[in-house]
Amino acid sequence: MFKETFQRYLSMIEQTLAQLPWEKDVLNQSMYYSLIGGGKRIRPVLALASAEAVGSNPESIVPAAIALELIHTYSLIHDDLPAMDNDDYRRGRLSNHKVFGEANAILAGDALLTYAFELLANPKLGQPERQLRVIREVALAAGKVGMVGGQVADVAAEGKSLTLLEIEEIHKAKTGALLTASARLGGILAGGTEDQLKALTSYAQALGLAFQIKDDILDVVGDSDTLGKPAGSDLRQNKATYVSLLGLEGAEYQLHAQIKEALSALQPFGEAASFLKELAYYIEQRKH
Amino acid sequence: MFKETFQRYLSMIEQTLAQLPWEKDVLNQSMYYSLIGGGKRIRPVLALASAEAVGSNPESIVPAAIALELIHTYSLIHDDLPAMDNDDYRRGRLSNHKVFGEANAILAGDALLTYAFELLANPKLGQPERQLRVIREVALAAGKVGMVGGQVADVAAEGKSLTLLEIEEIHKAKTGALLTASARLGGILAGGTEDQLKALTSYAQALGLAFQIKDDILDVVGDSDTLGKPAGSDLRQNKATYVSLLGLEGAEYQLHAQIKEALSALQPFGEAASFLKELAYYIEQRKH
Repeated sequence: MFKETFQRYLSMIEQTLAQLPWEKDVLNQSMYYSLIGGGKRIRPVLALASAEAVGSNPESIVPAAIALELIHTYSLIHDDLPAMDNDDYRRGRLSNHKVFGEANAILAGDALLTYAFELLANPKLGQPERQLRVIREVALAAGKVGMVGGQVADVAAEGKSLTLLEIEEIHKAKTGALLTASARLGGILAGGTEDQLKALTSYAQALGLAFQIKDDILDVVGDSDTLGKPAGSDLRQNKATYVSLLGLEGAEYQLHAQIKEALSALQPFGEAASFLKELAYYIEQRKH
Repeated sequence: MFKETFQRYLSMIEQTLAQLPWEKDVLNQSMYYSLIGGGKRIRPVLALASAEAVGSNPESIVPAAIALELIHTYSLIHDDLPAMDNDDYRRGRLSNHKVFGEANAILAGDALLTYAFELLANPKLGQPERQLRVIREVALAAGKVGMVGGQVADVAAEGKSLTLLEIEEIHKAKTGALLTASARLGGILAGGTEDQLKALTSYAQALGLAFQIKDDILDVVGDSDTLGKPAGSDLRQNKATYVSLLGLEGAEYQLHAQIKEALSALQPFGEAASFLKELAYYIEQRKH
């Protein structure tokens, strides 16, 4: 069931992404190149599954859910730039600025971010008050107190030795906030209660940390081919990670603790959250 | 009266900008540095004056109007980057990346753009349907078919000889679209009729072109001290402008024609649009 549902969500997401009005010019090509770059689509999947957990048909919120993928993609394009992480590859393909040049990469990121908000304000969603709430929450999660703030802290932390608490703060802002906003987006647009939104928040926060811990573990135990990026890069960059601070076993323990927390947050939903439950196991066990 | 009203608008704008929750960290500092860099605030002023033209108190829409200035500011920060126009100065001060570094400049731009949408979704504005429409229109105007698209075309046009039509297309996208969205934002939030919105659109489109023509003229006849940037830079960069294509007199004629068109669009508003009328004259006669 998990695989089938995942596949159903992915089809909705990929179809809607591909059917957006992509023109033939270099800006559209550059946006599309990174958007269709084989991402895991965790954020929109989380949104659709959260809508379903509160008892709604996820189909109707797909145009809002893909906005999350646009925001995630823009952040990867900008993170890869020479002035930032200077990464030539992303998911086994050349990064955006290596294909389209730096100016176009910066602008493609800007356009993706802007387009995301256009999609969130889509009149077809037909729920002005809920949409406005979602726009505020997504903007907060993606902006200076969220993702962008986390990236600034991450760049500033380079070469410094951080404590576990400091690492967690960066992850919470850089990736956790948008993941949480993704689950809440689904819950809010589907008309979830405040209690349901709280439960989705706890779930997504734990899932976000678990995702990051697993990333750190994979960097040590994974192989480059499966990962689609060079393994061991954290170690080479002398980066403080869950593994470098807790050891492999300690990190595995923390991963498991977060997964347990994520699962316990789902209890009030019962059967309706079975996909979200499986998603947590999937993240614990993923190989890339 | 014009000066007093302009001053009244500017005080509302500056006060609201300064009172946003700016933290002490480098990201907030970098955002604030460029935001408080002595801009003319044309976009929020246009929004407030348009709200007043349709008979509403502009005070209530200030939090939305300043979002336009955040978007304009982000675009300047990114335009100045080494990978784009590589400008070390902006309005007589060091450009953002010269002070805060390239990574922080890119991220400050990203955060300003994101913050703009948070402000547009502000619950205090209390008009969900109008706000959603504004968010859609602003996103369109700022995104791939508007400002970002225009900047891509502008970068691609470097060193090429353009026709007047091509130049106009670039300007309409790069600066015209957001100026038009600014006037419409004021009109929409203030509850203007569709006819009033059409009139504001015609006005702002003509004003936008007039602004650009005047820019081209000032680059030839202005002096660097008054402009706050080196005069004659278009000529040195061999850039196609209204002046290079039409001559100084031809450009002056076009400027005047656009101002006339802007004024004629205002007729239905009568006295309520007297500030917008004076604003057109001000743009025709400005020295910087």
